[in-house]
Amino acid sequence: MSKLVKNAVGRMVPTEINGQEVIPFKGVGKHRPAGRKYAPPIPTAMDYPDDGNKVVASLKEALTKCGLKDGMTISTHHHLRDGDLVSNTIFDIAHEIGVKDLVWFPSASFPCHDPLIKYLEDGTINRIEGSMNGPLGKFVTQGKMKGTAVLRSHGGRVQAIQDGEVKIDIAVLAAPSSDPFGNANALNGPSACGVLGYATTDYLYAEKVIVVTDKLVDFPNLPMEIQGNYVDYVVVVDKIGIPEKIVSGTTQITKSPDRLLIAELTTQFLLESGILKDGCYMQAGAGGTSLAIGYFVHQLLKEKGWKSKVGFGGSTKYMVQMLEEGTMEHILDAQAFDLGAVASIAKNKNHHQFPVFNAYNYHSKGNITTMMDIMILGATEVDVHFNGNVVTHSDGYLLHGIGGWQNCLHAKNVILPIPLFRDRIPVIKDEVTTICGPGEMIDIIVTERGIAINPKRTDLIEKMKDSKLPIKTIQELKAEADAICGPSQKPNLSDEIVAAIKWVDGTVIDVVRKVIE
Amino acid sequence: MSKLVKNAVGRMVPTEINGQEVIPFKGVGKHRPAGRKYAPPIPTAMDYPDDGNKVVASLKEALTKCGLKDGMTISTHHHLRDGDLVSNTIFDIAHEIGVKDLVWFPSASFPCHDPLIKYLEDGTINRIEGSMNGPLGKFVTQGKMKGTAVLRSHGGRVQAIQDGEVKIDIAVLAAPSSDPFGNANALNGPSACGVLGYATTDYLYAEKVIVVTDKLVDFPNLPMEIQGNYVDYVVVVDKIGIPEKIVSGTTQITKSPDRLLIAELTTQFLLESGILKDGCYMQAGAGGTSLAIGYFVHQLLKEKGWKSKVGFGGSTKYMVQMLEEGTMEHILDAQAFDLGAVASIAKNKNHHQFPVFNAYNYHSKGNITTMMDIMILGATEVDVHFNGNVVTHSDGYLLHGIGGWQNCLHAKNVILPIPLFRDRIPVIKDEVTTICGPGEMIDIIVTERGIAINPKRTDLIEKMKDSKLPIKTIQELKAEADAICGPSQKPNLSDEIVAAIKWVDGTVIDVVRKVIE
Repeated sequence: MSKLVKNAVGRMVPTEINGQEVIPFKGVGKHRPAGRKYAPPIPTAMDYPDDGNKVVASLKEALTKCGLKDGMTISTHHHLRDGDLVSNTIFDIAHEIGVKDLVWFPSASFPCHDPLIKYLEDGTINRIEGSMNGPLGKFVTQGKMKGTAVLRSHGGRVQAIQDGEVKIDIAVLAAPSSDPFGNANALNGPSACGVLGYATTDYLYAEKVIVVTDKLVDFPNLPMEIQGNYVDYVVVVDKIGIPEKIVSGTTQITKSPDRLLIAELTTQFLLESGILKDGCYMQAGAGGTSLAIGYFVHQLLKEKGWKSKVGFGGSTKYMVQMLEEGTMEHILDAQAFDLGAVASIAKNKNHHQFPVFNAYNYHSKGNITTMMDIMILGATEVDVHFNGNVVTHSDGYLLHGIGGWQNCLHAKNVILPIPLFRDRIPVIKDEVTTICGPGEMIDIIVTERGIAINPKRTDLIEKMKDSKLPIKTIQELKAEADAICGPSQKPNLSDEIVAAIKWVDGTVIDVVRKVIE
Repeated sequence: MSKLVKNAVGRMVPTEINGQEVIPFKGVGKHRPAGRKYAPPIPTAMDYPDDGNKVVASLKEALTKCGLKDGMTISTHHHLRDGDLVSNTIFDIAHEIGVKDLVWFPSASFPCHDPLIKYLEDGTINRIEGSMNGPLGKFVTQGKMKGTAVLRSHGGRVQAIQDGEVKIDIAVLAAPSSDPFGNANALNGPSACGVLGYATTDYLYAEKVIVVTDKLVDFPNLPMEIQGNYVDYVVVVDKIGIPEKIVSGTTQITKSPDRLLIAELTTQFLLESGILKDGCYMQAGAGGTSLAIGYFVHQLLKEKGWKSKVGFGGSTKYMVQMLEEGTMEHILDAQAFDLGAVASIAKNKNHHQFPVFNAYNYHSKGNITTMMDIMILGATEVDVHFNGNVVTHSDGYLLHGIGGWQNCLHAKNVILPIPLFRDRIPVIKDEVTTICGPGEMIDIIVTERGIAINPKRTDLIEKMKDSKLPIKTIQELKAEADAICGPSQKPNLSDEIVAAIKWVDGTVIDVVRKVIE
């Protein structure tokens, strides 16, 4: 590992990762990119069949034709979520052929990908650059992965591909429907998942693109969420996914009294502070607390006769309900979380496919996230400086991906509704284990025992000064948690760096170190 | 001018144009591109307003902020056709500021752009790279333009931008509606023109992008035919176009008895040859003869209970009628020719926006055009080798653009329904004035006095051997025309090259020489 330097949030980070030079985080909006976007090779139609039929017999044949070899980077998207039957197959084939040292570059990984651990162990895969949940993350934090993991936000992944930091050799893109030319979308078919936006950057920039589908339809398959002009081969398989694991049949509002209280406090805060208003833009996740906030906000908007102008999804049946009952005008959708959302995309004209490519990429001419009035996010930890962590637990284990979290921090008002402690471990620390987002971007922490406003938001502090809501300082909240749980224990970490956390501009904001077990 | 070499169709072409090295045409499917696509600079969201509002006060301000200076290449699209009020304004501003030697790179030009001649004369514009009709073309053929014109097909223009042969400094994109972020489409507004697909490559690859609209709408303006993430500035003006000149109120089927005969012969040929069949893919233009063919085909399909699976537009109300009456399943649309087509795009779910970016670019992973069964095209001249000319008249004057003509030649069956002579000048020559497409790609010539099948299409000759249709050789057709009109006169040309004609792969297939008047 190269030398370490202290970055703008005070973390010691390397200047080289996996043999590639990297730039330490310089502060929010401080790093100005140089140079030009990545440019894939110029193809020619003379290499593609005149009848437009790019179907080959198997994924193995397609990978072979793409020249699969040692050291290549293989990308996949995660729209099939925990029901993905395609990603593991790629590496089964690579293993069978005897190809080594691959880089897997998914837009996210899920428990269904745990079988890849054997390929990390036997050298088929050198490293994963992408989110890792559960066992894969634990494997990394135990220092068992050959290469160093690199974690990026959804927008950061777009930026990394676009800027040529990650060069995709072969993109293997599962598609719920495709025509023989490779025009693909996710609106129907047995593995319908609504949208395919996480695949956009991959097919635009990869050297070779394979579409894998279990529903081959006649040309023209429209809309072309994947444009066939960028596709080399189409593979038809029996099943690309397990439908009930691709989308949850239902996403559910929390039933926990504490979480419901957090949701109520959040909603009341949004109303009293004036952040919630007619025409506001909002985004919330699909967790139980977020859904409860969405539901309460929906009721409030109805009561007031107001309407949210734009909801950015990850969409759920609850957002769809807002759309259909008139409290939300548009859903811009990067990812459908449940079946109600999938059905809505195909039927509601104001429920739009909206790739992260267009919403989150910091190295584009503006981001959608900066326009959001209300941004509801989670965190595994926050600290008294409002810094946030979403990837590691307080014991040091890397157990979650960044998702769109860093991108969403750019919103006008970032609210973290989080419990004060989980399993008797306080969530508010003196210092987060891993900094994923700098405190200056996090505005409000809402817990079941009080609300802390970031001191830099003097406007909000002023607005809320006469509120009956339990407004406290973050130090007060921390003291309460510590009084109940006892002081936080530091994780037991070695010096060995096992993962790097990139900021939205491609700089390194923090690292994850090996846990001493 | 650099040295001349003989290319694969026997034309003497230069190896350098406007100081840039060029490759002589090597034959159809013979030139393999090397290298990588063009890469524009990496932008950063930190340079764009957080509230997403990119509106500036005037086009002059936007151009100034984009750093307009001598020698730059300015691109525009032609969806506003002869009603375009934006393109001329750019050069009025450039002239006012005193900027010189610009390159105008439109996707096509129209008579409304004739006022630009004064800027070609005074040095504001060095040259036009794009189609030139009427006076602009005449000006060029008279050798009056400072630089050399470069003509490309619609797909060739995409290829040239993508491959970096033309680097766009500033794309000025007129848009019938835009939000303040620059998300734009053409579905409504006073200047609605249906689609904006000719602008796709421009906004993806230009260094700077300006959207000019006369209908500013709230975010989010969807669909994003122009994606705001690529847009630098939005300018709101009173009027971007003259509606009645943007689309003709009505496109009209020919009333000429000769043209109607040509249309009937063409339709009968399509039927007898088996080219017209249930499920066929077809494309025809918006000229009076093409429309008549479309109408006859529509009737035939109805009679037979058949359906065209895909119609590729330039769309007209006649295609829309096919869609709505069930003889066409999908319209893929690159350009709306009349008001009926514009209205249909907004309302018919099987009438799809389909940019030439995805249909025609030869340097992509396959073209849509090769899948077309029936391709109806025009020509100013054809020769006994079936070579076709669409840009110059027999007197040598450059009076038309290439449009999608070269791209469309890649279809399975290319049919040219053309009159045997125009104004007593025969259309069939020993040698065309300008080769825009090699004879091997043109299958059938249909005239009012007979039908010629390309000898290389032995399959069609065999199929039609018992037909009662007037099948003749092309030499026979030529002899008939010559007998009526007298032998063709050669145009009176100097050696001076005033324009280059590019093939779909970026090579030079022919040149246009100065006419001696």
